[in-house]
Amino acid sequence: MVNKSRIKFIKSLQLKKFRQAEGLFVAEGQKLVQELLASSWRIESLYYTAEHAHLELPDAEVCSSADMARMSGLKQAPGILAVVEQRVLPEFEPRGTLFALDGIRDPGNLGTLIRCADWFGMNQLICSSDTVDLYNPKVVQATMGSIWRVDVHYVELKDYLSGSQKPIYGLDMSGSSIYEENIENGIIVLGNESQGIREDLRSSIQHFISIPGSGSAESLNASISGAIVMSELHRRASGKA
Amino acid sequence: MVNKSRIKFIKSLQLKKFRQAEGLFVAEGQKLVQELLASSWRIESLYYTAEHAHLELPDAEVCSSADMARMSGLKQAPGILAVVEQRVLPEFEPRGTLFALDGIRDPGNLGTLIRCADWFGMNQLICSSDTVDLYNPKVVQATMGSIWRVDVHYVELKDYLSGSQKPIYGLDMSGSSIYEENIENGIIVLGNESQGIREDLRSSIQHFISIPGSGSAESLNASISGAIVMSELHRRASGKA
Repeated sequence: MVNKSRIKFIKSLQLKKFRQAEGLFVAEGQKLVQELLASSWRIESLYYTAEHAHLELPDAEVCSSADMARMSGLKQAPGILAVVEQRVLPEFEPRGTLFALDGIRDPGNLGTLIRCADWFGMNQLICSSDTVDLYNPKVVQATMGSIWRVDVHYVELKDYLSGSQKPIYGLDMSGSSIYEENIENGIIVLGNESQGIREDLRSSIQHFISIPGSGSAESLNASISGAIVMSELHRRASGKA
Repeated sequence: MVNKSRIKFIKSLQLKKFRQAEGLFVAEGQKLVQELLASSWRIESLYYTAEHAHLELPDAEVCSSADMARMSGLKQAPGILAVVEQRVLPEFEPRGTLFALDGIRDPGNLGTLIRCADWFGMNQLICSSDTVDLYNPKVVQATMGSIWRVDVHYVELKDYLSGSQKPIYGLDMSGSSIYEENIENGIIVLGNESQGIREDLRSSIQHFISIPGSGSAESLNASISGAIVMSELHRRASGKA
C-alpha cells in the first residue's frame, strides 16, 4: 500500500516544475527499468504490481494496480515504475562528431534522437537550453532505455557554437547534399520542428547541408533528418561503400 | 454559424467507425488544407475562422472559434478544417521499389513514413489490412500534406507477398547490412513497432536486411528505420558515392 501523499508526489513529477524542485523523474515499463538497473543512474524508489513479482526487482515495493494507475503518467500503466534521481553531468567535453539540437519541442523527437544516437554509438548530444526537458516522461519513454546511455547536455547553444573550434554544419533545406560534404569531427545543428535553425545561430554555421529528396514533401521530420545524417556518418566511419 | 448536428457529425469523424460509415475524414491546418486544394482529392466541406479570411479559401464557410474548437480533433484548433472524401484507389500496380508496412500501429509512424515516401519521390506504399487507418486524424496530421500525394494501399499482405514476383526484403535486426545488399525494384517489408515482421510473412521474405549501428540501443523506431532505408536507396538511385 502506497500512501496517498506519496502517490500524489509521484504523480506531480509529470510536471517539469516539480521535477526540477525535487531533482527526480519517473521511468516506467519493464525494458526501461531493467536497463536502468544495469546503469549507474540512481533510483530513489521502485514500484511494481504483483504480476511482475517474477522479475525480482531489487529494493522494490509491491503495490496494487489501482495505486499504480494513480502514480502512472501513461494511459495504460505498465505496472513497473521507478522514481529516478536527475543527474548532474560533469562539464561537457565533446568527443568526435556531435549533434546539437536547437529548440526541439516535441518530446517524441528528442527521445527518438537519443535512441538513434545510442544506436549509432554516439553517447553525447547537446541541446539549446529551451529544448524540451530530457526528463519529460514522453521523452523518457521514447528513448526506449537509451536515456541511460547517452549524455544530454543543455547549453547556451549560441555561445557554445561561437566558442567552438570544430567545423559547424547546419541541417537546412537550402544546404548542399550531405553526400557531397565531408563531415568529420564536426558539430551538426538540427533545427526546431517549425522554424528550423534559428537566425541567431546561423552566423556560427559554416556549412549548410541537406538530405536530397525528389518528391514534393516540403521537409522531413526533425528526428528523421537527424537519424538519416547519423546513419550516413556511421556508414562512412565504418568504411562502407 | 454551424448547426449543432453538423458539429457533432464532424466531431464523430475522429472515430474510425464513423469515418468508414460516411466515407469521409477530417484534415486541419493551413498547410494541409492548401495542399489539399492543390490536389485531386474531393472536399465535402471547408470551414475557417475569421482570422483566416485573407486566405480566400474557395467554397468555405466562416465559423466562430468556439464552433471550430468543437469540430476540431486537435487540442488547439488551427482554425481551418476540411471534411474530405475518402478515396477509392484504382487496382494496385507497383512501380519500382515498394515499401510494405506490416501492422504499423502508431499513427505518427504511418504519417511520418508517408511524408518520407513523398520526400524521396515514392508515391506508393502498401500496408497490411490491420495497419492503423490512413484517415486517423493523427496520421493525416503527421503526413504534413504528403497524404495527398502518396497512394496508400491496404492489402492482405501475406497473399500479396506470396504472389509477387519481386525480390522481397525484410528489415530485421538479424539481417545483413543494407550496405551489403543490392536492393533494386524489390519490396521492403517494415515490421510492427513491438513484434517486428510477423511470423507468417517471414517465409515470403528472401533477404533480411538491417541498419548497422554500434551502440547499445536494442532497435530503431519503425519510421526511423524505414526512412533510413528510403534515403539510402535514393542515394544509390542518384548515383552518389
